[in-house]
Amino acid sequence: MSKRQNFYLENIPFDEAWQRFVTAMEGAGVWDALPGEALPLDEALGRVTAAPVWAALSSPGYHASAMDGYAVRSLDTLGATETAPKRLTLGPEGQAKYVDTGDPIPAWADAVIMIEHTQQIEDAAGADFIEIQAGIAPWTAIRPMGEDMVATELVLPANHLLKPVDLGALAGCGHPTVSVRRKPRVAIIPTGTELITVDQAAREGVKSGDIIEYNSLVLASQVREWGGEPTRCPIVVDDYELIKSTVLAAAATHDLVLVNAGSSAGSEDFTSSIVEDLGTLLVHGVAIRPGHPVILGMIDRHSTPIIGIPGYPVSCALTGENFVEPLISHWLGRPGREKPRMKATISRKLLSPIGEDEMVRVTVGRVGERTVAAPLSRGAGVITSLVRADGIVRIPRFSEGVDTGQEVTVELYRDPAEIERTLVHIGSHDLCLDLLAQFLADAGRRFTSANAGSLGGLTALRRGDAHLAGSHLLDPETGGYNVSYVKQYLPDTPVVLLTFMHREQGLIVAPGNPKGIKGLADLTRDEVRFVNRQRGAGTRVLLDYLLEKQGISSANIQGYRREEYTHLAVAVAVTSGAADCGLGIAAAARALDLDFIPLEKERYDLVIPRVHYESELLRPLLELIRGPHLRRVVDALPGYDTAHMGEVVAGC
Amino acid sequence: MSKRQNFYLENIPFDEAWQRFVTAMEGAGVWDALPGEALPLDEALGRVTAAPVWAALSSPGYHASAMDGYAVRSLDTLGATETAPKRLTLGPEGQAKYVDTGDPIPAWADAVIMIEHTQQIEDAAGADFIEIQAGIAPWTAIRPMGEDMVATELVLPANHLLKPVDLGALAGCGHPTVSVRRKPRVAIIPTGTELITVDQAAREGVKSGDIIEYNSLVLASQVREWGGEPTRCPIVVDDYELIKSTVLAAAATHDLVLVNAGSSAGSEDFTSSIVEDLGTLLVHGVAIRPGHPVILGMIDRHSTPIIGIPGYPVSCALTGENFVEPLISHWLGRPGREKPRMKATISRKLLSPIGEDEMVRVTVGRVGERTVAAPLSRGAGVITSLVRADGIVRIPRFSEGVDTGQEVTVELYRDPAEIERTLVHIGSHDLCLDLLAQFLADAGRRFTSANAGSLGGLTALRRGDAHLAGSHLLDPETGGYNVSYVKQYLPDTPVVLLTFMHREQGLIVAPGNPKGIKGLADLTRDEVRFVNRQRGAGTRVLLDYLLEKQGISSANIQGYRREEYTHLAVAVAVTSGAADCGLGIAAAARALDLDFIPLEKERYDLVIPRVHYESELLRPLLELIRGPHLRRVVDALPGYDTAHMGEVVAGC
Repeated sequence: MSKRQNFYLENIPFDEAWQRFVTAMEGAGVWDALPGEALPLDEALGRVTAAPVWAALSSPGYHASAMDGYAVRSLDTLGATETAPKRLTLGPEGQAKYVDTGDPIPAWADAVIMIEHTQQIEDAAGADFIEIQAGIAPWTAIRPMGEDMVATELVLPANHLLKPVDLGALAGCGHPTVSVRRKPRVAIIPTGTELITVDQAAREGVKSGDIIEYNSLVLASQVREWGGEPTRCPIVVDDYELIKSTVLAAAATHDLVLVNAGSSAGSEDFTSSIVEDLGTLLVHGVAIRPGHPVILGMIDRHSTPIIGIPGYPVSCALTGENFVEPLISHWLGRPGREKPRMKATISRKLLSPIGEDEMVRVTVGRVGERTVAAPLSRGAGVITSLVRADGIVRIPRFSEGVDTGQEVTVELYRDPAEIERTLVHIGSHDLCLDLLAQFLADAGRRFTSANAGSLGGLTALRRGDAHLAGSHLLDPETGGYNVSYVKQYLPDTPVVLLTFMHREQGLIVAPGNPKGIKGLADLTRDEVRFVNRQRGAGTRVLLDYLLEKQGISSANIQGYRREEYTHLAVAVAVTSGAADCGLGIAAAARALDLDFIPLEKERYDLVIPRVHYESELLRPLLELIRGPHLRRVVDALPGYDTAHMGEVVAGC
Repeated sequence: MSKRQNFYLENIPFDEAWQRFVTAMEGAGVWDALPGEALPLDEALGRVTAAPVWAALSSPGYHASAMDGYAVRSLDTLGATETAPKRLTLGPEGQAKYVDTGDPIPAWADAVIMIEHTQQIEDAAGADFIEIQAGIAPWTAIRPMGEDMVATELVLPANHLLKPVDLGALAGCGHPTVSVRRKPRVAIIPTGTELITVDQAAREGVKSGDIIEYNSLVLASQVREWGGEPTRCPIVVDDYELIKSTVLAAAATHDLVLVNAGSSAGSEDFTSSIVEDLGTLLVHGVAIRPGHPVILGMIDRHSTPIIGIPGYPVSCALTGENFVEPLISHWLGRPGREKPRMKATISRKLLSPIGEDEMVRVTVGRVGERTVAAPLSRGAGVITSLVRADGIVRIPRFSEGVDTGQEVTVELYRDPAEIERTLVHIGSHDLCLDLLAQFLADAGRRFTSANAGSLGGLTALRRGDAHLAGSHLLDPETGGYNVSYVKQYLPDTPVVLLTFMHREQGLIVAPGNPKGIKGLADLTRDEVRFVNRQRGAGTRVLLDYLLEKQGISSANIQGYRREEYTHLAVAVAVTSGAADCGLGIAAAARALDLDFIPLEKERYDLVIPRVHYESELLRPLLELIRGPHLRRVVDALPGYDTAHMGEVVAGC
């Protein structure tokens, strides 16, 4: 069935869109910080005070001894010296009284002598004394009443985020409860006929066209993290009246309603009409990317703001950060959360459309003296780009992009300290790198890996963008690996070539090999569709070498120009039927239960500039690659051989 | 009763103490990261993965349309141009099929044309077509299967702290649950016969000698914040056998036992003996201050580590940070939490004993181009010093201290961004500053205030340590306020003198004025004990001026030399009976229900260097002081007059 719709989306700058939203909330009287609720102290951690707190009691509530020792009158101690010690009587009417730390000082006393500075003795008549060898000043070793807090004094301001010690102070000055801001209640309504829950998926499997709904999980988790109270509504199918009644019911009992997907202008995008129907549509389309199709509005009957959130997972999560977080923070009386910022050099050119603020996800690493930000996938559907992101680079809407090597500001998702212990790998992808990452995590190092192919890795090393590059580049002249390429691409950089492992390359084909493919010669058959790797990939170099050797012309191979960037992507193309065959490693075939026709065993090395090779940062990596644990795990994978793992290759 | 005990405490450097503890845990087999437990995704936020997670399903699970549009064979579109458009048939056997974003691509199609680039038409015969004006390449507008995640691919490593987007990724690749590390179970046992709960205090009041127990609240909140599961045990009185049996029971069911107080070497400090009794005492006394009397040990029967935590609240909280946090982090498979660091200039000399690492609490502010760290109270009993602290400066045990103006590293408790919006006040204390702080918080500014007296404030401005200083310095020559002092102390700094308010100074006496004090002449009476303010305080200047005028010699005033640093501290001295009378403001007397004998109305100004006066940072303060809201609240306090609030004083 064909559909027609209104394609129109606005493109309102963020600040203007936000201001419209705030003005509408002010007009409806829902732009105030939320009221307080009294909570017992042990439930108040991380909540926000709704009012200033003044001390109910003084602490200490009396003049208290700061030491274990004897309470005395300071006057009585004057004149005592080592050569002429003084004796003070003990007992009920005595001049000295033993006190533990924290005990009240008797009314007649005005100082405490530490027990270490006294000598307890008994005279001939059996009376108890202490002997002292120095006088002390008034108020020595006494914590005066109110030293910490005086009743009526301000202890905590309003809008204060309660930390553990704050709770202690509240208890210490006599408050068993504290008034904290009520949590903003946020309803999250996932809509879409194609959606299934992850429980359904696990129970019943996923059919073609099914989409596992998880945006509501991300939004609910964000709301919780930011201090709100989320309600995840069940999935609502694409039915105008059903969505409308769900929205209206949610608006009656929540401070904010989020409707996920249906916020664009497509045939089943009902949200904007529903908002117009139930109240006021303020904004439909914001000049942000990803996350353009945002809806801001008010449900008038309940004076409840509503946000229509785009369906692509990255757009959804970033819309949460851009619109939901500041709203929750405001309602809690807090300034918005600010991410730590860091200057970095961008590792490759980014073109960005004029007219929209773009948020580019990047990994960040400290390579020598440079901090390098490497862009991740910009696809709005790629949630893993946010999972892997160390931060966001904003390209403002009046800019066309940034050039390779340009300085950018990264808003960090991580502690800057984590960046300092990150090893940056750019180069050829191998599944063993994931294992390496896992071992490194146990050794206190993060490992980020960008798939750029073997040649891409060498180029990255030349630019100083990475600590190491995985490489398996065959030299057709010599039949050897990597050495000649390193000499060519890194002529001026002293590097160490460290063998990781050998691995089997071969043809990945569908289970049972239905097209009867036996070798490269079969690739030229009419009914065989091939899927290739990108230029610069070691696997592509190997293919071209083998084709040349066997006298096969790439022009005769259907699909030679279709390029994928990883072994797994090649295997996926075969699994999905998009191709019949591709060149890749055995592990990728095995991972997706595909058949594998071995062709060649190749060496996969790590190329490491000597300056990093000798650094403390990389030490755990060298230990791992030379130790027994990683070797054992890699050996257990199909198609790998670790006989030479950890050997330094001569000739570089 | 007198007591004797063993005063001996060790003084073991932190690293050595920690290593002993770790070695013992390794020996007992309790130094491994904790095992995993499976949790539904919506309960897993903030938890830590116990194992790597590999994708169970690919996402998308099929080749999906990235747009609303028509699925086509790219071959069919070749050659279409604006002048020679092509028509593709619709319908069951047609060349184009409508797809929504996310729909699967039919097996025969290999590209999607955006609906915006098509024209739907009906020909004369009533057949449906779309017309296109450009050809498209294969795989246009298709999200290939596995674009985001390929089944078997690593999605998250072990030991990963789960963020909202991570949970989305887990659901997206088919995992309804995730294995996260079990939370470390931590028992917290408060001990002490003098302790009462805050609920008891609120219900029954606090007697002299009672101490409100809140260390267990602070420790439990810390443990919760760091990812552990705390058990707060009821208060145990100082009874050896009772504490011992409580410790043993807790050790059987927890990963870690914390015993609070009793960790020193005093008469009722049982913890070290109990640890020796039940297992191994590893360390008794660490070279850290505050927090020296720490006990580290093992309860052998249950292989449970135990920490004896000192009783002073600051020592207690810092011992949590130093010993409990790294242990919990390790058990969760995480590196220890690192606080953000910032370089700053210390505002005054700190002497520190050789032999112990000292942790000095500081406030931090950015004053012009300088970042200034101002030390707070070093008293281990002053929990508010931690409440107010922006961070910690560590003075290592081989250093004697730091000099005024020296550069130090601050480990921050706050976001560096919060420091940037902090107004730093050093000078005379007034209750109205607390109100001002509250209003400023609403306007997005933090306000930190250090009481240094009026002269101390001017000195701080001269050093560039503060943005503003409250001052009420009477010039005995002219009878005017502040102007002559500013000229003398800040001859080279252009400043603005802004009147905050006028306030009443007078004698603070016990309720009912039992000693019948009528004026300053009474201070020389034998039975009247006075309490004074420190040198440099405006109130002290006023006192000396009035004494001089009335011809009274300070030598005849009992208590003239006892100095307190705030109005409230003076009032406390009167309340507690330590003094009969002191000079201070009406509000302080009223706060503690004391009587007040007015003597003088004085002007309290804010001294603000012009460079700060004109800064964006201080703008909200100027608006507040000239607006109606703050004025109304100050006017409602006893003894204040706001008639001149916000006026600039001429002559500076």
